[in-house]
Amino acid sequence: MLKLFFASNTCALASQIALEEAAAPYETVRVDFRTNEQRKPEYLAVNPKGRVPALVTSRGILTETPAILAFVAQSFPAARLAPLDDPYEFARVQAFNSYLCSTVHVAHAHRLRGSRWADDPVAIADMQRKVPTTVGDCFELIETAMLQGPWVMGDRYTVCDPYLFTLSQWLDGDGVDVKRFPKVVELQQRMNARPAVQRALAAQRA
Amino acid sequence: MLKLFFASNTCALASQIALEEAAAPYETVRVDFRTNEQRKPEYLAVNPKGRVPALVTSRGILTETPAILAFVAQSFPAARLAPLDDPYEFARVQAFNSYLCSTVHVAHAHRLRGSRWADDPVAIADMQRKVPTTVGDCFELIETAMLQGPWVMGDRYTVCDPYLFTLSQWLDGDGVDVKRFPKVVELQQRMNARPAVQRALAAQRA
Repeated sequence: MLKLFFASNTCALASQIALEEAAAPYETVRVDFRTNEQRKPEYLAVNPKGRVPALVTSRGILTETPAILAFVAQSFPAARLAPLDDPYEFARVQAFNSYLCSTVHVAHAHRLRGSRWADDPVAIADMQRKVPTTVGDCFELIETAMLQGPWVMGDRYTVCDPYLFTLSQWLDGDGVDVKRFPKVVELQQRMNARPAVQRALAAQRA
Repeated sequence: MLKLFFASNTCALASQIALEEAAAPYETVRVDFRTNEQRKPEYLAVNPKGRVPALVTSRGILTETPAILAFVAQSFPAARLAPLDDPYEFARVQAFNSYLCSTVHVAHAHRLRGSRWADDPVAIADMQRKVPTTVGDCFELIETAMLQGPWVMGDRYTVCDPYLFTLSQWLDGDGVDVKRFPKVVELQQRMNARPAVQRALAAQRA
């Protein structure tokens, strides 16, 4: 059985939603970020990067949200979570998710994780000040140029949707008003109505 | 025919190496970062993110290195650039490339692109000071826990190799001595000996 290591309010939610959508047999293990459990030897043996998510499979451990999402889509093709038979369309899914991990998530991380890239408290504070702008700019681009609607890739639900939904949960904390982005708001509403999303959210809150 | 938009000394080199390895029919278009061509309307029409690489295909335009690399591998399966028939192994390739784009490239970018995330010159300078540490830590993890050797994924060359090779070109500028990482040095030597790599490097320098 698959085992997902997650922490509350992290991007691991995207992987859990995908597992629920796929009706995959899996269990979860909560990593407590408040006690820095992700930095303890037990967890570093699972994921030496000290991050979540990590997905334990019968073959080994996978990390990185875009990779886990593609793995779930390919491993449970009946759930139709990605255009698996079309390299171009599959690459579009990967490109969207790659933008989320390398640009959107990184912009957000400068609010609470600035010490990854600077030490001076002045620098950390300046990074935090810019987060509403950088995250807002990312979602502006998503709204105007990337999110086709109603789902990210158009009429078809894919693993892009749980990932964008997850990162959009952080807008309020980042000082960005989601109402600026009507297509993102509609995607949130559609996601919240899906039983798989409700199950994943309930499990993470439990 | 495919068309790759690239700029010198950027991660676009990875995509060009992959195209060469695949013997793909393609042409290149150079984007001049010195004149900020990537921010001009003509290029933003190609890639509204204002970044390279961008790959123009007969179906549309793809961006983001991990997505382009997977697309090349899937579109030219005879080149055997990724384990296409094994979702777990394919996910390992994607996870490695996702780490490069979301963590390693981002750590590097704080040296010359700090203004993406801060405005105060004090903050920009503090970010630059930390780059040797953050980039060094990334390559330490790659060397000890990720790069199997001789290629990233072990005995088989994959699209992880041109991507790691490309980012490893930046170590010297980032103040990190590559000699700390013998497996990375060996990978660089093996890559430099490949005709596809030599052709891509020559084309980018031309």
